[in-house]
Amino acid sequence: MLKRYLFAPGPTPVPSEVLLEMAMPIIHHRSPDFMPVLESAKKDLQWLYQTKNDVIILCSTGTGGMVGAVNNFFNNGDRVLVINGGKFGERWTEICQAYGLQVEEIIVEWGYAVKPDIVEKRLKKGKDIKGVFVQASETSTGVYHDIKALASIIKKYEDTLFIVDAISALVAHDLRTDEWGIDIMVAGSQKGVMLPPGLAFVSVSEKAWAKAEKSKLPKFYFNFKKERENLAKNQTNFTSPVTLIIGLNASLKMLKAEGLKNVFKRHERLANVTRRAVQALGLELYSKESPSNSVTAILAPPGIDGQAVYKNLREKYGIIAGGGQGKAKGKIFRIAHLGYSDRFDVIIAIAGIEMVLKGMGHPVKLGTGVAVAQELLID
Amino acid sequence: MLKRYLFAPGPTPVPSEVLLEMAMPIIHHRSPDFMPVLESAKKDLQWLYQTKNDVIILCSTGTGGMVGAVNNFFNNGDRVLVINGGKFGERWTEICQAYGLQVEEIIVEWGYAVKPDIVEKRLKKGKDIKGVFVQASETSTGVYHDIKALASIIKKYEDTLFIVDAISALVAHDLRTDEWGIDIMVAGSQKGVMLPPGLAFVSVSEKAWAKAEKSKLPKFYFNFKKERENLAKNQTNFTSPVTLIIGLNASLKMLKAEGLKNVFKRHERLANVTRRAVQALGLELYSKESPSNSVTAILAPPGIDGQAVYKNLREKYGIIAGGGQGKAKGKIFRIAHLGYSDRFDVIIAIAGIEMVLKGMGHPVKLGTGVAVAQELLID
Repeated sequence: MLKRYLFAPGPTPVPSEVLLEMAMPIIHHRSPDFMPVLESAKKDLQWLYQTKNDVIILCSTGTGGMVGAVNNFFNNGDRVLVINGGKFGERWTEICQAYGLQVEEIIVEWGYAVKPDIVEKRLKKGKDIKGVFVQASETSTGVYHDIKALASIIKKYEDTLFIVDAISALVAHDLRTDEWGIDIMVAGSQKGVMLPPGLAFVSVSEKAWAKAEKSKLPKFYFNFKKERENLAKNQTNFTSPVTLIIGLNASLKMLKAEGLKNVFKRHERLANVTRRAVQALGLELYSKESPSNSVTAILAPPGIDGQAVYKNLREKYGIIAGGGQGKAKGKIFRIAHLGYSDRFDVIIAIAGIEMVLKGMGHPVKLGTGVAVAQELLID
Repeated sequence: MLKRYLFAPGPTPVPSEVLLEMAMPIIHHRSPDFMPVLESAKKDLQWLYQTKNDVIILCSTGTGGMVGAVNNFFNNGDRVLVINGGKFGERWTEICQAYGLQVEEIIVEWGYAVKPDIVEKRLKKGKDIKGVFVQASETSTGVYHDIKALASIIKKYEDTLFIVDAISALVAHDLRTDEWGIDIMVAGSQKGVMLPPGLAFVSVSEKAWAKAEKSKLPKFYFNFKKERENLAKNQTNFTSPVTLIIGLNASLKMLKAEGLKNVFKRHERLANVTRRAVQALGLELYSKESPSNSVTAILAPPGIDGQAVYKNLREKYGIIAGGGQGKAKGKIFRIAHLGYSDRFDVIIAIAGIEMVLKGMGHPVKLGTGVAVAQELLID
């Protein structure tokens, strides 16, 4: 028996309470059995998003939500700005280009956060930028981009939408959709909201809906205007993924019971403890600034392969962490503290890292990181 | 307590054995825990599809698979033929038009099947038709189009792909992908394969892959070439919907244990019994020819509203049937016998219909249809 501990930055663990709700008999998506379920999930999603905007629910992975954020609001040839500081920044560029948009990239060195004044400078240069795309938490580097600062700049530009990929940030970071002025914010089920993969969520501001009227890009499956019409009737445009939405309802109820402030505090605390503990082991963070509350990216010590750490964690101890992606592959490994995550998850992760590094011949005094974590986790 | 009986043409009931498999702890989609699951599901899908072709697995509803069948194989301005004999025929046209294809429709009166020689005549007229789209089972009318006959015509045309929406037909009808020469066949999880909504499946022939090389329509989420590369490694392009694929594995194992011939025979039998029983009640089928094995569409008796029958079934007896869609709304109601369906499901449906009609003042001798069904269901 090798007990599994899932600390990957998605999919994340789903509470048994939610999994068992999802095992209830199938109900029909156009029946009165289902509509109150969707209505409740819809309202609770608005609570989580801190918004009065519609939050569209799609049957897809988070990437489907990203595609919808492009094909519903833009046109062929539109010039947009992509803040690209990691693998998911690259994805924004790829999606925009797949739909014929003209992409101007602000390249951010991996491990760093974008400097908002660079965005401001570019927007001041001309009124040609139709949208600015960014990740809230760039999962590949463990960096959080300053969404509040970016929003305060972009909202001054009438013709520019602000589109945030919050797939791994929602729940872990306090993202104030309405207060800050985020036009489009994408999230997915298999991260902070503690569900299996299969749902994407996208909030859409009135400013963005006005743009949608003029968008001529081909759309059928990700047609947000149709989804909006259906959402008003507590329906989805196509067959609703009923089990996942039943699960969504259950998991959002759990988050509501905890309270939004407590949810954010818990994530901030677990992230902070993880960072302090690995630093106590003499390890360096890959995120040089503005670390994410969702996932901690850790540089493998000199002479040690990051992928080998990741593999040993999994094969020897059943700990499913994240490896490095793209150009960070081999250099780093990643530990998520996202969603259904509590104090002893961090203890397990740190203990496992210590044991793996020691086993690989790296000088580690066992218990060093664990003790630091314990100290910070005493209530 | 009002016990529910789900006889809608999707979502259909999911066996508890499958629901509970799906309640197992989340595993990571890029881990060795998951790859054998996908490998097995992939092979069993090929068995069900009767094909050696790749069968792509997408995280979407069946409609997402239909979109992928268009945006991966065609180009702006391509002329295609859509056989439109119901609500889902209309959907093919809408998708093709959303992607800028030139659609020529063969309109088939609702309740009837396409005459294959009309398709042959049109194809002979010129070599300009790049694809022929059809439903195997048109869910809105309960009609099965003759896929074998259509395939034998279309495969003679090198430049023409044959695309079948088998969303509600797979499992209920013997569809011989390779033997007949179906280029692209779309199915979904929430029908015959006895799963919740959330997965689409699409088989792709070598003839179709060759076309994919030349397709320039925008694609990112439904990018079949990328899915094919990933499938070869027992992966999906984006996060795999792990719970649904675990469920897929479980449900395909159940179908395999029954055997393909028996699965088809069961559906054929239940469909036949349903038709004979409702006819014994003096009711008329909406499908005037070639009735589907998935769903039976029944004309409401004169003076009785089809939607009222559907509502009474649900509200008084907990029987979730299908109402009429589009222009058939109010005229008909529909009973599915698809997927996890056995003899006493038919008995319940027929008994319920008798009781509802009697309750609405229609002259019915209770037990007439039930007795016919019983007679035909004795083993």
